[in-house]
Amino acid sequence: MSMHIPQRILVAPSGFKESLGADAVASAIAAGIRRVIPGVQVDEYPVPDGGEGTAELLASTTGGELVPLRVTGPVGEPVLAHWARLGGRASGTAVVEMAAAAGLRLVPRDRRDPGATSTRGVGELIAAALDDGATRIIVGCGDSGTSDGGAGALAALGVRILDEHGAELPDGGRHLARAARLDLAGLHPRAREVEIVLACNVHNVLCGPRGVARVFGPQKGATPEQVEELASGLEHWAALLGRVSPGAAELDLRTGPGTGASGGLGAGLAAVLGARLAPRFKVLLDPSMAPACLDTLIAQADLVITAEGAIDFQTPRGKVPAEVALRSRQAGVPVLGIAGSLGSGAPDVHDIGIDAIASILTVPMELEQAVEQGERLLRDAAERCIRMILLGSALSARAPLSLAA
Amino acid sequence: MSMHIPQRILVAPSGFKESLGADAVASAIAAGIRRVIPGVQVDEYPVPDGGEGTAELLASTTGGELVPLRVTGPVGEPVLAHWARLGGRASGTAVVEMAAAAGLRLVPRDRRDPGATSTRGVGELIAAALDDGATRIIVGCGDSGTSDGGAGALAALGVRILDEHGAELPDGGRHLARAARLDLAGLHPRAREVEIVLACNVHNVLCGPRGVARVFGPQKGATPEQVEELASGLEHWAALLGRVSPGAAELDLRTGPGTGASGGLGAGLAAVLGARLAPRFKVLLDPSMAPACLDTLIAQADLVITAEGAIDFQTPRGKVPAEVALRSRQAGVPVLGIAGSLGSGAPDVHDIGIDAIASILTVPMELEQAVEQGERLLRDAAERCIRMILLGSALSARAPLSLAA
Repeated sequence: MSMHIPQRILVAPSGFKESLGADAVASAIAAGIRRVIPGVQVDEYPVPDGGEGTAELLASTTGGELVPLRVTGPVGEPVLAHWARLGGRASGTAVVEMAAAAGLRLVPRDRRDPGATSTRGVGELIAAALDDGATRIIVGCGDSGTSDGGAGALAALGVRILDEHGAELPDGGRHLARAARLDLAGLHPRAREVEIVLACNVHNVLCGPRGVARVFGPQKGATPEQVEELASGLEHWAALLGRVSPGAAELDLRTGPGTGASGGLGAGLAAVLGARLAPRFKVLLDPSMAPACLDTLIAQADLVITAEGAIDFQTPRGKVPAEVALRSRQAGVPVLGIAGSLGSGAPDVHDIGIDAIASILTVPMELEQAVEQGERLLRDAAERCIRMILLGSALSARAPLSLAA
Repeated sequence: MSMHIPQRILVAPSGFKESLGADAVASAIAAGIRRVIPGVQVDEYPVPDGGEGTAELLASTTGGELVPLRVTGPVGEPVLAHWARLGGRASGTAVVEMAAAAGLRLVPRDRRDPGATSTRGVGELIAAALDDGATRIIVGCGDSGTSDGGAGALAALGVRILDEHGAELPDGGRHLARAARLDLAGLHPRAREVEIVLACNVHNVLCGPRGVARVFGPQKGATPEQVEELASGLEHWAALLGRVSPGAAELDLRTGPGTGASGGLGAGLAAVLGARLAPRFKVLLDPSMAPACLDTLIAQADLVITAEGAIDFQTPRGKVPAEVALRSRQAGVPVLGIAGSLGSGAPDVHDIGIDAIASILTVPMELEQAVEQGERLLRDAAERCIRMILLGSALSARAPLSLAA
């Protein structure tokens, strides 16, 4: 029976949070595909999203290295973090993954209070990259556990944040309402010279009804009262930042795209350091950051497979599968999405160009089990999907026969 | 983009044990298909397997009726069972589902002792069908919780099973070793006149290393010692049956095909009543038993979808999806299998003609939840499968474009 067997498949997944990195996800899917079509060319393009795993992934794909560093964690205790010194065409670029120093996962469940957590460790990583001679620093914003407007990071870079009596403020977003003045005298000498780019979800803004305190405060552990306290503190902070910002005229610090990234880290670094707030995939999928260009690989593929830990109503809002689908649709290549779980609203992803979706689950099991067996489940799921796609392909091949009969 | 959209799909599933009947499974899958291809013709052929739900399903598909009857349950307490008076072309045929009177599910977990359980209720159902004037009785064997060689059923039909002192034996397989003589004087007058057909898995045999005691005893709750006790009791029983069997010469009661059906019910009814032991799907899928012929529907379909509660290493051993795949392969029609869970060995089903498989699970959940939400999960799974098949179909449509480029 003749049918069209895909000759070249692109696997472009996200990582599965707390289970598998994007590269492990890509390999598992590729292995599942090869079980069914041994001779197929599978291109693997694990997609960084700016959150957990981004620094490690970009260090790996550019042939660079990961620099481990002990920094101040989000609740003040030291954590072992890292930043990436990229290689290849991205040489000279450092990647600071904010989640490695101040991610939500580093905040113990019983201390999830975004009024108290700090981005100080992120500033320590940036300082280390500056000291190392980086000429460009990309800050991946995602999976943050903070809401301090970047105050902690600025403090680590030498900015003194003072109250009306000239005393330095303690760490934590809840103190921002008392900030009266910034003293930049001690700012790291290279901090304003080096290009700093924040790879952020541009939908995240600092203030207003869709501001970070209101949208992300609750999932970071804030009570409704704390959310309002944080929101008004950030309003005050935005006004203060506006007065020191070198480019205040151009940049609306309250509701400009990305100002709310990582609990306001975006606004803080943009205002004080002149950092650029850029759409994360535009930065992270730049052809200089990987051995191959994603768009080229898409154009060469018969089929694109993307994946994420959960495909649900949030997926269309700028998640990795949405970005992969957008680019694939432009190239006219069909897209399959594989997920650890298919949550509520999952079928909405068909509207953004994901043609078919599948879950990796095979038997009733707990999340923990699924996480533990993630690699095997992914491989098996990919195998099942390819078999079903080949079934569909064979259907077409049967068509002329049916017509002739 | 041109592609071959299936015009006609046959849905031929089994029921999902303890969750959904085969007809509900078929409707849910059909609904999922129509969500993606509104104009498609979907033929539903819920497939009976001789076990739970068989009588109800056949009553429904033939336009017959279900006759409720209080009978002796497998542990001696009364249970509300039923038998089916078929309609249409199968008028005159009664269906007795052994599971309705002596199924494993009717044996409380703390009383799962196949040395004690009895098929007496099955005999009571057969007697009721005989009294009702049935000219043919089909006994569906499956999901049994007994191992009494059919002794209980024979007793209910008037056979006295006596020990060497002439005393009647109590119910339960463990007493068979003491059976010395059968007194047929009181046998139901029509029991040997009416055609009785057991729809059984012909792989089930009464004695020997692959005999029912050894293969099914443990899952019915027997300890290793009990298994051996049962096995030797059934050996003795087979020898005794051989002496009264009208067709003993032809029928090897120990290891003949189907003699082990329902814990030896097959051997007992064959030997004493001259019942015929027939491959279950040959009987249950006879064109007289449904509004349409399964093989005709398969031949007219572009795609066949089958389903079962679990697809695993047991599926190829004569389960519904295996039968559907066998017939579909002969007709050259591709087959998709949807399962509540994909257990160990599931990919083996590709060897028997099931081209692709999928699970209905979407998020980590417990079995209970999956059972509760079975209908929705099935509908959604069918939708996902059809989308993936259409993706594959579109791949083929792209092929000429790729070649031309």
